[in-house]
Amino acid sequence: MRIHLPAEQIPTAWFNALPAMPVEMAPPLHPGTREPIGPDDLAPLFPMGLIAQEVSTEPWIEIPGEVLDILRLWRPTPLVRAERLERALGTPARIYFKDESVSPAGSHKPNTAVPQAFYNKAEGINRLTTETGAGQWGTALSFACTQYDMDVKVYMVRASYEQKPYRKILMETWGGEVVPSPVDDPGHPGSLGLAISDAVRDAVSRDDTHYALGSVLNHVLLHQTVIGLEAQEQLALAGERTPDVVVGCCGGGSNLGGIALPFMPDPSVRLVAAEPASCPTLTQGKFDYDFGDTAGMTPLMQMYTLGREFVPPSIHAGGLRYHGDSPIISALVHCGRMEAVAYPQGKTFEAAVQFANAEGKLPAPEAGHVIRAVIDEALAAKELGEERVILFSYCGHGFLDLAAYDDYLNGRLVDA
Amino acid sequence: MRIHLPAEQIPTAWFNALPAMPVEMAPPLHPGTREPIGPDDLAPLFPMGLIAQEVSTEPWIEIPGEVLDILRLWRPTPLVRAERLERALGTPARIYFKDESVSPAGSHKPNTAVPQAFYNKAEGINRLTTETGAGQWGTALSFACTQYDMDVKVYMVRASYEQKPYRKILMETWGGEVVPSPVDDPGHPGSLGLAISDAVRDAVSRDDTHYALGSVLNHVLLHQTVIGLEAQEQLALAGERTPDVVVGCCGGGSNLGGIALPFMPDPSVRLVAAEPASCPTLTQGKFDYDFGDTAGMTPLMQMYTLGREFVPPSIHAGGLRYHGDSPIISALVHCGRMEAVAYPQGKTFEAAVQFANAEGKLPAPEAGHVIRAVIDEALAAKELGEERVILFSYCGHGFLDLAAYDDYLNGRLVDA
Repeated sequence: MRIHLPAEQIPTAWFNALPAMPVEMAPPLHPGTREPIGPDDLAPLFPMGLIAQEVSTEPWIEIPGEVLDILRLWRPTPLVRAERLERALGTPARIYFKDESVSPAGSHKPNTAVPQAFYNKAEGINRLTTETGAGQWGTALSFACTQYDMDVKVYMVRASYEQKPYRKILMETWGGEVVPSPVDDPGHPGSLGLAISDAVRDAVSRDDTHYALGSVLNHVLLHQTVIGLEAQEQLALAGERTPDVVVGCCGGGSNLGGIALPFMPDPSVRLVAAEPASCPTLTQGKFDYDFGDTAGMTPLMQMYTLGREFVPPSIHAGGLRYHGDSPIISALVHCGRMEAVAYPQGKTFEAAVQFANAEGKLPAPEAGHVIRAVIDEALAAKELGEERVILFSYCGHGFLDLAAYDDYLNGRLVDA
Repeated sequence: MRIHLPAEQIPTAWFNALPAMPVEMAPPLHPGTREPIGPDDLAPLFPMGLIAQEVSTEPWIEIPGEVLDILRLWRPTPLVRAERLERALGTPARIYFKDESVSPAGSHKPNTAVPQAFYNKAEGINRLTTETGAGQWGTALSFACTQYDMDVKVYMVRASYEQKPYRKILMETWGGEVVPSPVDDPGHPGSLGLAISDAVRDAVSRDDTHYALGSVLNHVLLHQTVIGLEAQEQLALAGERTPDVVVGCCGGGSNLGGIALPFMPDPSVRLVAAEPASCPTLTQGKFDYDFGDTAGMTPLMQMYTLGREFVPPSIHAGGLRYHGDSPIISALVHCGRMEAVAYPQGKTFEAAVQFANAEGKLPAPEAGHVIRAVIDEALAAKELGEERVILFSYCGHGFLDLAAYDDYLNGRLVDA
């Protein structure tokens, strides 16, 4: 059963988690002085429109009409009740998912790519740089930039650039320029942290250029809250009061934040992060100040981190291979408002295939993590005979990740 | 603007074009005797439920509830008004498309794969064989068979099997067994006609096995009419009376039939088929009896054909590379009720990229053909200052066809 929100009920304001946080958040620090940073420190990288959102204490922030015009190409996204999965599990739980795979890039990423491009363009910036791992974020930003007639240069982790040409082609189809990273060491396989360093270096070296980040920062999570806000309206249409538990997979935290933050003020709703056992930031990282990139060029943020030089094994969920995590998500886990679980990737592919068979949708490897957690929640509810209402973000499809399924089906996974 | 049909308004009967045809259709002939075939001749290949549909004169045929249960995973599909494309073209035309890319296989094919699996299972058949070119149909049938706990063996054109491993993996994820065809000549690149011969040979050799065809036959077009029937309801919701022109790309004819046949009884609606210039069945073929396969094992059907041994150049729109065409579509073109246009593939990719930029959706190469025709219709309407209402079937996404876009972007297309 799919629940469609009428087009005119698309959210017109983002939910800002900052004033609703149950704990005070430590300020980001300047990488040189180690003093709290101000707006001017960020100005070489971001437009003032986004910097203001990064620190805003307004509970709601209006979505510009020009942004809504583009979001409407795929939003509101469907809320789907996974009835065939419920039946396959024999659970009394009711499972709902927001289908973010219907976007141009096939994931939740365009929700923030579009406003980021918009605010830059509004301040006269005509060129953006960014990093991308497997390519989801670079694809989203390429799509967004073509809408506003902007140039974009994507620094893509070299291992992915060479092994996964499809997303590179998708970026190029939308006019993006894609180069392998690190740019100064053609023999290096690259990492997300190194690619961020490359993209930041490019942006600060040119006046016409800014940098765009696809996760982690407050304004990115803000833009993703359309997911949870729509879900609230759609659950009401489905006759549900409020979910018992909201689950998302977590790499940098924007997908999880998008579905979970609008539910955060209600203490009766459990919030759960699902991450890879091989990159266990929230479950085994240290809660401390660290850099967002490997070279140490970004501000220091207080977050769960495995250390900026940590290089996770090359699991297929490229979007979850990040040493750090969003400060908002980290603070919520640290204070106990949010739970975190970690899974080896074999278990997540098992769940993904079960979902594909039951619901006819092939999940991205990242989404396999949240589906694993959801199935475990549903089986726990069955054990207890509980009518648990579970909501999760189906953050992307796996049509460009079929090599990963091939590895799974043929017993070639690491961290199985 | 997306127009959603409420879940409870999913069509519950298929529209049967046979009693509404403006001309009498010539009967299929037995490949040996060349006499008209009867139901018993088809029984080694198809269940009686489908054979009855192949020749039915009932205007409507009820869709079984067990089939609707599965179709509801993605149906009704959205009807989308392509407003950003209209604006980019500066046309007074109003362009609507049915988004069939949201299905499990990413195309219209599951609309018939599900009922075909159902009717076979209902008659005790537990194994199906089929052919597939690029893999769309094999994917759809693998998905359908897993829903009914059936085995499926897919004979995949060898060139695609070797060059396009992604769809093979998708079939395997849904439990399909995939082998390259022709099976008896490992050095041969294969063709759709040869793969049909392989699949038919397998099916007739085993009592527990039937054959399934993804296009061409009357019952396949029948199952696809859900596309056009939903579109009629959705156009009414959008405040439109009736389209001026309905367009579909045409390989075997099932996608085109699905969107166009429900509009066929209304003489005010123009119907248009878009096909590749390099496989110009409707525009340059001969209207005559011919076999559906290369080996001459299938019944002879009256249709437009380029000859059963015609091997089209290896354009990227694998789904449109077929020497023949559906008898229903052929008869409509032959009597003048339907128009046909042909395009070189360079023109279709140009249209596909324009659509991807405007609407945020990456079309399959097959869909590039219909989009080319639609853009030309919209530009003709602009020339005439006409408020033309154009409806087309967006028959599939291109996420598994990115190598084709790479060829286009880098000037490597044949038949450009």
